[in-house]
Amino acid sequence: MTRTVLESKSKTVVIGFDEPFCVIGERINPTGRKKLAAELEAGDFTTVEKDAVEQVACGAMVLDVNSGAVFTNKMAEDPRYADNNFVEPMLMPELVKRVQALVDVPLCIDSSVPGALEAGLEAAEGRPLLNSVTGEEERLELVLPLVKKYNVPVVAISNDDTGISEDPDVRFAVAKKIVERAADFGIPAHDIVVDPLVMPIGAMATAGQQVFALVRRLRDELGVNTTCGASNVSFGLPHRHGVNAAFLPMAIGAGMTSAIMNPVRQVEMEAIKAANLLMNHDPNGGAWIGFSRIIDAVNEGATFAEAAQASASSGRGGRRRRR
Amino acid sequence: MTRTVLESKSKTVVIGFDEPFCVIGERINPTGRKKLAAELEAGDFTTVEKDAVEQVACGAMVLDVNSGAVFTNKMAEDPRYADNNFVEPMLMPELVKRVQALVDVPLCIDSSVPGALEAGLEAAEGRPLLNSVTGEEERLELVLPLVKKYNVPVVAISNDDTGISEDPDVRFAVAKKIVERAADFGIPAHDIVVDPLVMPIGAMATAGQQVFALVRRLRDELGVNTTCGASNVSFGLPHRHGVNAAFLPMAIGAGMTSAIMNPVRQVEMEAIKAANLLMNHDPNGGAWIGFSRIIDAVNEGATFAEAAQASASSGRGGRRRRR
Repeated sequence: MTRTVLESKSKTVVIGFDEPFCVIGERINPTGRKKLAAELEAGDFTTVEKDAVEQVACGAMVLDVNSGAVFTNKMAEDPRYADNNFVEPMLMPELVKRVQALVDVPLCIDSSVPGALEAGLEAAEGRPLLNSVTGEEERLELVLPLVKKYNVPVVAISNDDTGISEDPDVRFAVAKKIVERAADFGIPAHDIVVDPLVMPIGAMATAGQQVFALVRRLRDELGVNTTCGASNVSFGLPHRHGVNAAFLPMAIGAGMTSAIMNPVRQVEMEAIKAANLLMNHDPNGGAWIGFSRIIDAVNEGATFAEAAQASASSGRGGRRRRR
Repeated sequence: MTRTVLESKSKTVVIGFDEPFCVIGERINPTGRKKLAAELEAGDFTTVEKDAVEQVACGAMVLDVNSGAVFTNKMAEDPRYADNNFVEPMLMPELVKRVQALVDVPLCIDSSVPGALEAGLEAAEGRPLLNSVTGEEERLELVLPLVKKYNVPVVAISNDDTGISEDPDVRFAVAKKIVERAADFGIPAHDIVVDPLVMPIGAMATAGQQVFALVRRLRDELGVNTTCGASNVSFGLPHRHGVNAAFLPMAIGAGMTSAIMNPVRQVEMEAIKAANLLMNHDPNGGAWIGFSRIIDAVNEGATFAEAAQASASSGRGGRRRRR
């Protein structure tokens, strides 16, 4: 049975076919968050720390830490800052240390800069997930040695030097190639978490069926765990969260075992908690019942993040203090 | 490709693997609705007529019409009313006529009384669905001749003389027996819509997985369409609609093609519309976009039924009049 083992300082999270769906919080990511990038440039980690605590309270089991910031002001003063190969290897360990000082969950070290990946691996306690390798030759040669050296699992994105194929058979073949190349490095398939790439359903009507079929094949034929950027499926559509909230249970039913996503969204988290229950990954329904108390608090006027944090601070698994 | 064809006076609805999920409205059913039973006893069809119009506006493609009323007052005056074999064959055609005078959708003639089934089949226009036969010998011998005589499709519930098995293999075997017995009567498999029976997940932790696996087998091995009483899965749990809203997309992903359910519930209908989109059963997303306008109206303060009715009366597919 495929088990991808992640560790923080003292906790273990297993991504696996017989485990609750692994929610990887996506918020700590300055790419496309200008305000966050500006804060980081000023050495201000307030938002990072808030996002870390809030995401874990809302149900993130792993936190993605992405160092892809652009430091516009520093760049004007010092041209070295225009190069992310200069910025990210400094920023990543700082982010990692700030986050793991506050929350005890495994991290997902996320960068396109190999130096930042290695700096993150050096700084991380336990056994983080590395994000990511692709089927591109250069990435394979740069990232797989790090995966081997640090003995960590890695997210494998199924695009290669020809780009992202719209043909799911090609995306499967890319995933297979990565698994085979990893094996050449002595990296086992259970340490590869494949992202089969989710296309927007508004642009490609078969995008959902492609993912469901791919997840099944990846599981049955390669024996690997899977992940995705789930919200991409609803790009450009009205009421996106309704589409996401149906996509996640369908993907889980097809065998998807994790997603990199925003856990501070009640509707998506509710869909995942219910899907866990329906997959028999919530013994005695304890997690669902705990989550339903958070929904009660939201219905009484709290925000989801507030209710989740109140629940988390009052005890394990969503019990709330009596008032 | 399996296609179960239903007809009203002028409309055709196909239940099939490549069709949008068929929502069969469950509301016209006096079983367990004392107020409705009392109305029917008094010859008052107001609620039936309201439920017919409302369910169709909310997205029901077929309406279940159940005649299982208990007429308490009449029973006191005339002992014949204590027997549903007396009551239902009179009531069913009246219900059918009232409903089809108002809405042009195929009906699902629902009774445990064979005389009521036949009276409903006589009264119904087009090609209704008969609900139901089971694997019980007596039911097979009573109902299959009606199915053959009226050339209609039938819901086949997978219990038999030994009751409802908790073993999904036994429930599959019962379904197979019904399909085979139907074939002996000259009834094709595409006119059998199997209900694999959904158990409450709170009482049986494997209930979800059982249904998903059964639906796949029924489709792959018997080539039949499927239906269920979806809300049973959440019986006894808090925030049931959240569980139902994950169950339906997962069942649709596994191959379920219809459900007998309450269409006046936004959260479940939203899950189905999103699942249709994700299964590529909503060309160009037109149905999702129409539904999203109904959600907009709900967010502005309308009830789901009001918003759906306003949308339905303003044009096809959810377009709303500008105000």
